[in-house]
Amino acid sequence: MVAIEQDILGENDRYAAANRAAFAARGQFVLNLVSSPGSGKTTLLTRTLEVLNGEMPLAVVEGDQQTSNDADRIRATGAPAVQINTGKGCHLDAHMVGHAVERFADLTGGLVLIENVGNLVCPAAFDLGEHHKVAILSVTEGEDKPLKYPDMFHAADLLLLNKVDLLPHLDFDVERCIDYARRVRPDIEVLQVSARDGSGMQAWLDWLRAGLARVAATPASEAPAA
Amino acid sequence: MVAIEQDILGENDRYAAANRAAFAARGQFVLNLVSSPGSGKTTLLTRTLEVLNGEMPLAVVEGDQQTSNDADRIRATGAPAVQINTGKGCHLDAHMVGHAVERFADLTGGLVLIENVGNLVCPAAFDLGEHHKVAILSVTEGEDKPLKYPDMFHAADLLLLNKVDLLPHLDFDVERCIDYARRVRPDIEVLQVSARDGSGMQAWLDWLRAGLARVAATPASEAPAA
Repeated sequence: MVAIEQDILGENDRYAAANRAAFAARGQFVLNLVSSPGSGKTTLLTRTLEVLNGEMPLAVVEGDQQTSNDADRIRATGAPAVQINTGKGCHLDAHMVGHAVERFADLTGGLVLIENVGNLVCPAAFDLGEHHKVAILSVTEGEDKPLKYPDMFHAADLLLLNKVDLLPHLDFDVERCIDYARRVRPDIEVLQVSARDGSGMQAWLDWLRAGLARVAATPASEAPAA
Repeated sequence: MVAIEQDILGENDRYAAANRAAFAARGQFVLNLVSSPGSGKTTLLTRTLEVLNGEMPLAVVEGDQQTSNDADRIRATGAPAVQINTGKGCHLDAHMVGHAVERFADLTGGLVLIENVGNLVCPAAFDLGEHHKVAILSVTEGEDKPLKYPDMFHAADLLLLNKVDLLPHLDFDVERCIDYARRVRPDIEVLQVSARDGSGMQAWLDWLRAGLARVAATPASEAPAA
């Protein structure tokens, strides 16, 4: 099984490199959003898109086992979205994403947001060509998730602690959770947000704008090679 | 890839059949608990074990990518527990479980609870030899999960809607969620529970006792063959 896994990941990495080159050529800032099912990814995305719509080009790739519910919700914000249904699959891979973003080939610059299948295990191993994996953890899920699913939190550059509006009704220790996340990824950035009441959204939007500014300041020739 | 998947599942099914025969020979009622990370499975389990301890033999198999946190929490209730760490793996398989329950070979009758890796995709395809898959869905996760992860809800015989104490603070439509679950599994049973405030726990405990009574009334010779 090890040999098979390496073959699959090696093939994925070749597609991911091609995606990365294409994103660099178009000056796009690309995030791979990973979380458990029900962490509030899609609601966070729709709120984000509502604010950024008109400020920069936007495109979304939605991954789910079934349904196009999420792409429908995204399109309602005015942003173009492509839905990938993975069927039996527990994650997006770089090949799927490469085909999906062909639909956005007319866009230059701006933000490409890839919402992965809700799963804290499988998506960790698959590079899609993104700039950053962003892990979203709802405070309803418990503080221990970074220790129990370390691959995902190790792979993420930013942790969004979501649904903080529910903290008064929960036994959730924010500092302990952040400590656990930093045990598996010492330099992980953390933002506390609530898509529902808007808290922390400004810091998240600023983080997005800063990332896009960095990408825009990088000549394509200096971007990571394919 | 299809051929490989079938080989893996075929091998798993042979181990699952052996597990099923062993459980039948010992008169044990066996559940495979499946959910997203953070649905509250372990807290529900510890509350359940605290009540049933002394009433019937109990044994727990805990699956996580990393840590033995959950087995430690289970043992604190007095029930024996074995932790399986799956490393890169996103689900338990029947071979792992067969080895784990060897530790409980001295137990006869009662309840064997297998808490799978927190994941709404991968565990759906793997029979562990259990009597029932029980899906736990926290009301913080949103109503749409049965439609987005249909394999899991199709495979489950019982849906536990957990954390209902939080309903007053959420926009969650219980009836819609149950409707969605029944679209993918028309005869799924549903119980609304909160391990935190105890609501619905009596119905869940009665469901467990009734299942064990059915198993105890079935001669091993009439149990599903290996």
